[in-house]
Amino acid sequence: MSQSQTHQLNTPSADLLARLALIVGTEHAVLDPAAQQPYLKEWRDLYIGRTPLILRPGSTEEVSQVLALANEARVAIVPQGGNTGLVGGQIPSETGSEIVLSLKRMTRIRSVDAAGLSLTVEAGVTLADVQSAATEAGRLFPLSMASEGSCTIGGNLATNAGGVAVLSYGTTRNQVLGIEAVMADGAIWDGLKALKKDNTGYDLRDLLIGSEGTLGIITAATLRLVPAPKDQRTALVAVPSLGALLPLFRLAEDMSGAALTAFEFMSQRIVSFVARHTPGVRLPFLHVHPWWVLIEISHPLENSAAPLMEPLLAEAMKRGLVADGVIASSATQARDLWRVREAASEAQKGEGGSIKHDVSVPVALIPEFLRLADAEVERVCPGARPVPFGHFGDGNVHYNVSQPEGMEKAKFLALWEPMSHAVHGVVVGLGGSISAEHGIGRMKRDELATVKSAVEIDLMRRIKSAFDPNGILNPGKVL
Amino acid sequence: MSQSQTHQLNTPSADLLARLALIVGTEHAVLDPAAQQPYLKEWRDLYIGRTPLILRPGSTEEVSQVLALANEARVAIVPQGGNTGLVGGQIPSETGSEIVLSLKRMTRIRSVDAAGLSLTVEAGVTLADVQSAATEAGRLFPLSMASEGSCTIGGNLATNAGGVAVLSYGTTRNQVLGIEAVMADGAIWDGLKALKKDNTGYDLRDLLIGSEGTLGIITAATLRLVPAPKDQRTALVAVPSLGALLPLFRLAEDMSGAALTAFEFMSQRIVSFVARHTPGVRLPFLHVHPWWVLIEISHPLENSAAPLMEPLLAEAMKRGLVADGVIASSATQARDLWRVREAASEAQKGEGGSIKHDVSVPVALIPEFLRLADAEVERVCPGARPVPFGHFGDGNVHYNVSQPEGMEKAKFLALWEPMSHAVHGVVVGLGGSISAEHGIGRMKRDELATVKSAVEIDLMRRIKSAFDPNGILNPGKVL
Repeated sequence: MSQSQTHQLNTPSADLLARLALIVGTEHAVLDPAAQQPYLKEWRDLYIGRTPLILRPGSTEEVSQVLALANEARVAIVPQGGNTGLVGGQIPSETGSEIVLSLKRMTRIRSVDAAGLSLTVEAGVTLADVQSAATEAGRLFPLSMASEGSCTIGGNLATNAGGVAVLSYGTTRNQVLGIEAVMADGAIWDGLKALKKDNTGYDLRDLLIGSEGTLGIITAATLRLVPAPKDQRTALVAVPSLGALLPLFRLAEDMSGAALTAFEFMSQRIVSFVARHTPGVRLPFLHVHPWWVLIEISHPLENSAAPLMEPLLAEAMKRGLVADGVIASSATQARDLWRVREAASEAQKGEGGSIKHDVSVPVALIPEFLRLADAEVERVCPGARPVPFGHFGDGNVHYNVSQPEGMEKAKFLALWEPMSHAVHGVVVGLGGSISAEHGIGRMKRDELATVKSAVEIDLMRRIKSAFDPNGILNPGKVL
Repeated sequence: MSQSQTHQLNTPSADLLARLALIVGTEHAVLDPAAQQPYLKEWRDLYIGRTPLILRPGSTEEVSQVLALANEARVAIVPQGGNTGLVGGQIPSETGSEIVLSLKRMTRIRSVDAAGLSLTVEAGVTLADVQSAATEAGRLFPLSMASEGSCTIGGNLATNAGGVAVLSYGTTRNQVLGIEAVMADGAIWDGLKALKKDNTGYDLRDLLIGSEGTLGIITAATLRLVPAPKDQRTALVAVPSLGALLPLFRLAEDMSGAALTAFEFMSQRIVSFVARHTPGVRLPFLHVHPWWVLIEISHPLENSAAPLMEPLLAEAMKRGLVADGVIASSATQARDLWRVREAASEAQKGEGGSIKHDVSVPVALIPEFLRLADAEVERVCPGARPVPFGHFGDGNVHYNVSQPEGMEKAKFLALWEPMSHAVHGVVVGLGGSISAEHGIGRMKRDELATVKSAVEIDLMRRIKSAFDPNGILNPGKVL
């Protein structure tokens, strides 16, 4: 049944480029190669593309007109938000025939409904600005990630981005009540609804969320807010063994339920990298411990988080699940503890090359995954140093591997493919996912076909053909 | 772009019926009209269909073989679970050419992972049996509704059923980690994953959930369990005015957060019907109050729900949001309070005809919806008695209307269409949904096209064509 996904796409003519530029206004059409640069590469320089034209529309109507024209002319469109994606989904190919559509000018906060616990924003609003709008209304928008100052909500939705608050609040998908999107032929779908329950028809919203701009372009969203917690406690604890992580997590869940808003784990090695390479970070413990966990408890009532945290740590110590621990006694101390976790990605740079995997497995299988993956890494590159950390409660491990000490960086990075292949093999064997929160983009596109069944790939292709028959939307990504 | 959805479907030949029966075993192929009856009508006798054959497959493989053969022969298949649906989605048409596929023999609980907080069950397991399996493992499966003893989890997923626990735990959709489904051509999609985070490819799971058997047949699911609450408090409170409902709900949310597991509201009139027609129900208050709310707070720690409930009610009384209230002091008393709410549907029968609407609006707009809808009802049928109740916190109102006293029942029920039309007009005007939790089925199919945009209907049709090109899956439902 599966159709080929190769479409005859055209290189845009000068006339077409001029007409497209007129839609958004020539001052918002970027032709100058120097001015184009920030849109054409991502921060690690892993993907560098070319384009004849970057369009910066200011409204949904303009996006619609651009797509209608591009679809008619069979010209490819690459949508882009804050350009913080980690799998190359937002970067055009090297052919120079794909047009980049940046949503960054669409920054209107259309409405805030504090009583109704929702707000409606355009795609180009940064995640930090969405958070601020919620805070100003006395509410919380829980989605949070390291790039929140520059990533846009449109990009967050297009990639169903993860982050540190998934444990209690769910993924991006769970924060969305409705979306507005422009389809490949320019049709505008107004699916903006502030409803918790709507059981009418197919779930188009969730189909577009996470489709990485290959099925339609999200231009606005109505987002769910939650009451802001009035009390929060953060603790950093040392865990004596790999086997103690799961029982500790279960105990935290049992004793604090939905109030458990973070359970982030770190290996001893990544903590030592952080201590070594991050200015101003101090570790609270004298002794070396194999595992560390950052626990956060948030409560809607004043003075109600500590009464959950203290008995939890006491019980965990009694059961031998925690060897040492510190509870932050101020917001500043809490931020210092979070610093240890947040510096983890950056700190690896100080140790040379790093091969990264964003994977998930069923939570209960994390210890087994780590044992098996470590063995595979050692087989592929003896002496390589795994530095796992991540969102334990989501089963989401950032299984990053630093090069052996003294090895040449390029030589190590040349092992990316065999090492990834071996690690992802372990993941698939345990029923896991090779992309827990970063998506597929270009990086994992070819691998997708090897980890998904033929039936699933076929269904995805049918949807792609049904939504984008000419294949103009973000070609070469996902499928 | 929109294709016509009329397909040339065939009446099955005797030879085809025999071949289909052989797949499931002749003892599981129901030809006898008397034995067929329970599958061909639903409990209110609103829909009565005909069929040449009811198939009761015992495995996913058998479902696959049935669909492959039916698809080849262009013969329609109507999937059915516990036959408790309220919009006729599970009943074949009157043509007598559609084959019913009952999933009720697929009752295996394939696995329970208490530590991993998930279980995998086949489609025919009743919701009550899923709940029991979770309880036996010391966990909670939060989905709950009046029909739980007979509805099946496959039907729950196919219709994205609602229920009383959506407020805190989300809809059926939110309880599902992965599904297994058979596609129209018999292909089996194994999407059973016990992952909280998987960002690889399009969200086929959510597309199939809620598609009411028109895109594929769900044969099994991996469901998310949650830690069982260790303490629970239930209160029934009297609310002095319509305007006090929303501030009371916001106060309850602010003071108990995710621990607020039910906030069910009832009009005075429905409560008086319950008192009049439900044996054994006693109302706790002496005085008549215009609104009643059932509040439930659930907490993971022992003795921790009451310390949330008591200050909430005290503060609500202080603010004049609650006129009277009672907190259950035992599980038996809590069940008695729940009885008042649960008897609401049944109690209407004692007052003659009832025209029912399952709608949702943004929570903050419920008071406005009630004022506008009451006026419309009075216009269409002076003297008709609205008896709204439902899941306030979800914005989900069961806006049912009992006939005027003394009116002839049939004469009142003849007003179903104009009254529904008027009420749904108010709903749409407020950005609401004409089916909050019951789905579309046959009942609301024609109306769907009037409340959805042409763009959305077109996208739904494209998906339907992509997944079921011959149109054999549950024809005449949804689209």
